[in-house]
Amino acid sequence: MAQNARLQGLGILILCSLLHPAMTIAQQPALNLMPLPANVQPGTGSLRVDSAFSVAFTGYIEPRLERASERFLRQLARQTGLPLALKPSKTGKATLVIQTDHASKEIQEVGEDESYILDVSTASARLRATTPLGTMHGLQTFLQLVDVSPDGFAVPAATIQDKPRFPWRGLMIDSARHFIPLDVIRRNLDGMEAVKMNVFHWHLSENQGFRAESRKFPKLHELGSDSLYYTQDEIRDLIAYARDRGIRVVPEFDMPGHSTAWFVGHPELASGKGPYEIERRWGVFDPAMDPTNERVYKFLDEFIGEMARIFPDHYFHIGGDEVNGKEWDANPKIQAFMKAQGIKNNEALQAYFSGRVQKLVVKHGKVVIGWDEVLVRGVPKDIVIQSWRGQASLAQAAKQSYRGILSNGYYLDLGWPAARHYAVDPMSGDAANLSAEEKQRILGGESCMWAEYVSPENLDSRIWPRNAVIAERLWSPQEVRDPASMYARLDFVSARLEWLGLTHRTVMRHMLQRLAGSASRAEFAALRTLADAVEPVKEYTRERTAPAEPTSATPMNRLVDAVPLESDAARRFGELVDQFLSSSCRDAASEAQLGVQLTAWRDNDAILQPLAQRSFLVKEVAANSQDLSALGTAALAALDAIAKGQPAPDTWKAQQLATLEQMKKPKAQLLMIPAPAVQKLIEAAAGGGPCSGSKP
Amino acid sequence: MAQNARLQGLGILILCSLLHPAMTIAQQPALNLMPLPANVQPGTGSLRVDSAFSVAFTGYIEPRLERASERFLRQLARQTGLPLALKPSKTGKATLVIQTDHASKEIQEVGEDESYILDVSTASARLRATTPLGTMHGLQTFLQLVDVSPDGFAVPAATIQDKPRFPWRGLMIDSARHFIPLDVIRRNLDGMEAVKMNVFHWHLSENQGFRAESRKFPKLHELGSDSLYYTQDEIRDLIAYARDRGIRVVPEFDMPGHSTAWFVGHPELASGKGPYEIERRWGVFDPAMDPTNERVYKFLDEFIGEMARIFPDHYFHIGGDEVNGKEWDANPKIQAFMKAQGIKNNEALQAYFSGRVQKLVVKHGKVVIGWDEVLVRGVPKDIVIQSWRGQASLAQAAKQSYRGILSNGYYLDLGWPAARHYAVDPMSGDAANLSAEEKQRILGGESCMWAEYVSPENLDSRIWPRNAVIAERLWSPQEVRDPASMYARLDFVSARLEWLGLTHRTVMRHMLQRLAGSASRAEFAALRTLADAVEPVKEYTRERTAPAEPTSATPMNRLVDAVPLESDAARRFGELVDQFLSSSCRDAASEAQLGVQLTAWRDNDAILQPLAQRSFLVKEVAANSQDLSALGTAALAALDAIAKGQPAPDTWKAQQLATLEQMKKPKAQLLMIPAPAVQKLIEAAAGGGPCSGSKP
Repeated sequence: MAQNARLQGLGILILCSLLHPAMTIAQQPALNLMPLPANVQPGTGSLRVDSAFSVAFTGYIEPRLERASERFLRQLARQTGLPLALKPSKTGKATLVIQTDHASKEIQEVGEDESYILDVSTASARLRATTPLGTMHGLQTFLQLVDVSPDGFAVPAATIQDKPRFPWRGLMIDSARHFIPLDVIRRNLDGMEAVKMNVFHWHLSENQGFRAESRKFPKLHELGSDSLYYTQDEIRDLIAYARDRGIRVVPEFDMPGHSTAWFVGHPELASGKGPYEIERRWGVFDPAMDPTNERVYKFLDEFIGEMARIFPDHYFHIGGDEVNGKEWDANPKIQAFMKAQGIKNNEALQAYFSGRVQKLVVKHGKVVIGWDEVLVRGVPKDIVIQSWRGQASLAQAAKQSYRGILSNGYYLDLGWPAARHYAVDPMSGDAANLSAEEKQRILGGESCMWAEYVSPENLDSRIWPRNAVIAERLWSPQEVRDPASMYARLDFVSARLEWLGLTHRTVMRHMLQRLAGSASRAEFAALRTLADAVEPVKEYTRERTAPAEPTSATPMNRLVDAVPLESDAARRFGELVDQFLSSSCRDAASEAQLGVQLTAWRDNDAILQPLAQRSFLVKEVAANSQDLSALGTAALAALDAIAKGQPAPDTWKAQQLATLEQMKKPKAQLLMIPAPAVQKLIEAAAGGGPCSGSKP
Repeated sequence: MAQNARLQGLGILILCSLLHPAMTIAQQPALNLMPLPANVQPGTGSLRVDSAFSVAFTGYIEPRLERASERFLRQLARQTGLPLALKPSKTGKATLVIQTDHASKEIQEVGEDESYILDVSTASARLRATTPLGTMHGLQTFLQLVDVSPDGFAVPAATIQDKPRFPWRGLMIDSARHFIPLDVIRRNLDGMEAVKMNVFHWHLSENQGFRAESRKFPKLHELGSDSLYYTQDEIRDLIAYARDRGIRVVPEFDMPGHSTAWFVGHPELASGKGPYEIERRWGVFDPAMDPTNERVYKFLDEFIGEMARIFPDHYFHIGGDEVNGKEWDANPKIQAFMKAQGIKNNEALQAYFSGRVQKLVVKHGKVVIGWDEVLVRGVPKDIVIQSWRGQASLAQAAKQSYRGILSNGYYLDLGWPAARHYAVDPMSGDAANLSAEEKQRILGGESCMWAEYVSPENLDSRIWPRNAVIAERLWSPQEVRDPASMYARLDFVSARLEWLGLTHRTVMRHMLQRLAGSASRAEFAALRTLADAVEPVKEYTRERTAPAEPTSATPMNRLVDAVPLESDAARRFGELVDQFLSSSCRDAASEAQLGVQLTAWRDNDAILQPLAQRSFLVKEVAANSQDLSALGTAALAALDAIAKGQPAPDTWKAQQLATLEQMKKPKAQLLMIPAPAVQKLIEAAAGGGPCSGSKP
């Protein structure tokens, strides 16, 4: 899904999230787990984890479990710094005894048993699961439980009975718009395993690139990829890597639209005349396959057959989204075909195409999955709908007996804060009113990492840590939804994900160095302070606000590329302001903390400006820096007025709010995130609000 | 060289470095280069580096140069975030035109031409070199020159004529005491290339491990390595990787001592009865090869032959250090042999052994290199001495026509600050008085990374950034030795080294997370503040101060393992104190900065103590934390007294200095680095010093 279509439906969602602030759950387990298990019974004491820590298997065993055990021990060694023996104990006695009942399916299926029970006592731990899938999830829970204690590393005693709420918990990575190297994908699979996601949806073809090697049609990748593609051997390796982590790999080859890159080598598939070149811009483009050409189906038959043999998963994603129809309208042969066949419009023509392709996919032993658009009258009931449109669309499909997964609300590229993704539930809205049988058809969801503005360098920071909260939404019971608990645990889990080699927390400093060049330490610190206060523009405004039309060759070396999509520092500032105001402005501790932060902001620009004179990349954000200082100045004045207990004059308030409005406009494609919190302070200073009469 | 012997000679060196503070060089180039080139002529303006940047070759070309060019462009793309075409231009026209005269030797030789000339104008750049070795060095200089500018990325116009001062510029990594995985070694070779080092000395066997696969004698690595060894294919790959970077690989197989790990599989080589086990402790141990046993020489003949075929370099390191002789003394057969042959003592017996082994090495076409001990009467003149004893030993060897390299003063594991390594010159001391011909025999030096207290995780931070200043010592003209310039440039180069994937700057935060567990942000920041103020104990005191006897299985997860060997923050604090005192305590800016730092220290312990109650790894450093707070309190009192202009009473001074003395003692194997600077403040506060009468 490129941006244009993705815009729809967001308005409703924004409204919903405003009307339904997340509920507070009285009883939150104290454990730093994400996703939270279905059931935790805390015990007493804890199990020590030291150099003698060992693992033993009883019951079913397979090489994948042995590899999982070694990976677990290696990870435990990394987390603790303890030298651990990496082989399982052969005596059956060990610190952690693992019992798996039987094998899972050779090709992982939707809805297989993923449950596990983890019993930790002060003497030992026992992990039981029906299949290796559950065993692997249990090992990840154990790893999250390990913490440093007064006496060494330890795991708190507890009994955890756990199973997923939804059987389909996916992450889609678009490695077509920007090519993503395999090592980056692998570490993201490691991250998925850590948060118990089980589907990697691999978006492999786009207008901007065809990324899978085809031996039958080598011109696809040879001419459609700038030599940036995955070989079949690499793909097989990655699938094995994913299977080792309980993760299915669902390939997506988007058709009939989003397919310019196919046509560079195979213009005969297209509805237009060609020739075609790899698309460098972003958006929805005219090129589309010719649904009236039998050669297209012959080609797709062979191509799908080839790919079906490489990708063992039962599901095969054919995209199906966003055809603008212009090439169809302009092709007399297609128009004649439609007339002859009684095909009334382009939607019906696409339905005709989808139906034909669907039969080819079935012929090669797979089930079709596609975006909302593939659901048209007469499509067989066994297809799966991936909904970018939302729960209503999903509910409608379920009523018609179609299975579906939700992606609306889980688009990681939109720059939403974690709490907003977290509030999106596949079973809310229309879906909440479905019958039990219909609800069964909602299989889960997938977060989507569309890659217009993503490089291999910053991909991790666009996916993590926010993806972990979507993983929790899809795994944990529906009532687990307190954002405060979520953020507290997310911080911990985010740090843990670093041990897997993910770079989401380290890459910003690294990228800031590029902007800073030979900056002094003080200048670098000032740049960092600014970076902590801003976020990239949200939703689909990145193109509209771009200084020049962005393409796939646009460097991603600016501040907007370096900062995370959600600023922890700005969020904490907002919480601090709320805390201060909720105390009727009497909480001296939060007032003091605010003072320190605001003074640093006020003084920051003076430190940063000399660097802006030397670095074009810092110069670009000079206005943002001035805004931050102005924000600090205004907020300090507000604090001062509050401290004096005299409401600030209306003229001052009006002037400050006008300035704030200016600040809320994106500059250098960045938003000044603390502005709304400062607005609260200004309004409080002007009297009549929470601080009225708070000081003598 | 293990620690006992390395102790010798240090006293003299410490004395020398105290007597000869580094000289100031008036004319330091403003360029952030390390090592500084032999000659820089600054130009006017700069060359823009943008997405159109290209490289072309004229003159000699070979696949290695093409790979170097692609690596250069990839690195440039990483540094700038620009998407660059990675293939050289075929037209001969490009932003950077490279002309290489001819090939270098197939097997890189000591003293080959490594010079280059880099001409950068505002329009283009030209790199000329005699051989690919010079070309590769020039490319690294270019990369260091690229900086962000007001208009984009740019390289300042300049003409650089450069060549190394010494032909042998090495780094030794001990991958025997702790096994170091190949990816870690590879990124360190990348670092070596960046600072123009050209010898990787690979210490492959030790009491604690035999790390190279031998197909002739597989029990060597099978029984002597805990399965942690390099296969022959991996070794060949690494040698190719190094050659691609202009780096020779010199293997070291240490004999007749330091060889317990050999004897696990081959006890028949030893002088004792055995059986032998892999040594887990550190130190000098009894096991040694039996110099009187002809089977030993037959074995070594075959073994050296096998290794000589794998390692193409002309030099072969046979170690030869630290035999304590106890097994020889206890073996009647050896004693009888000595008597029969007229061998008077163990030193002579070792000389006999060295002579025999030297002949075997020559037979297999190699030149022997060994530690000081191999230089005994009658050894052929073509061997090379690696001196852990110092310049005097080196000079003596040179007078006897032996070639040598210096490692004394370059032991990275001793925890010296960069400036102290930087002050060590191979041509100082006795070496300064050598004739020109004798001086030619001093080939250069090698930094040594002995691995008793090094893990794959923290190895980078033990080598870098300090190794870069040793690289400069060995490359740049002797008169380049201003430590202030060095530290300024080092900071820049250290950041640049991160782009190669080295972890020296990022690993501490990562390792602190292990100590901190689920600490709050404030607690984590307090832990970081403490970490910035301490350094591991120096020289060879780590064993003496250990809480329990350290072994190769001791976890390296403590604060002492996480903090760098030189604290930048503590060094800057010391500079700030000096700046304040040199202003006769009138510099308000440095006074204010000191106040901020000292207040943070004073208040730090209160924040950290709760974490110390929860984490055994933080608890271990609770006393260090208290010291830091006490240091802050004492220094603030001193500042206060200075501000008041009244000398503090002698009783106060005595009390404070007594407290400081306590603080200077290592705790948890850590030193409180700012203590001496605070001592200066206390003494100044007590009057009679630089601050006398400075305030009203």
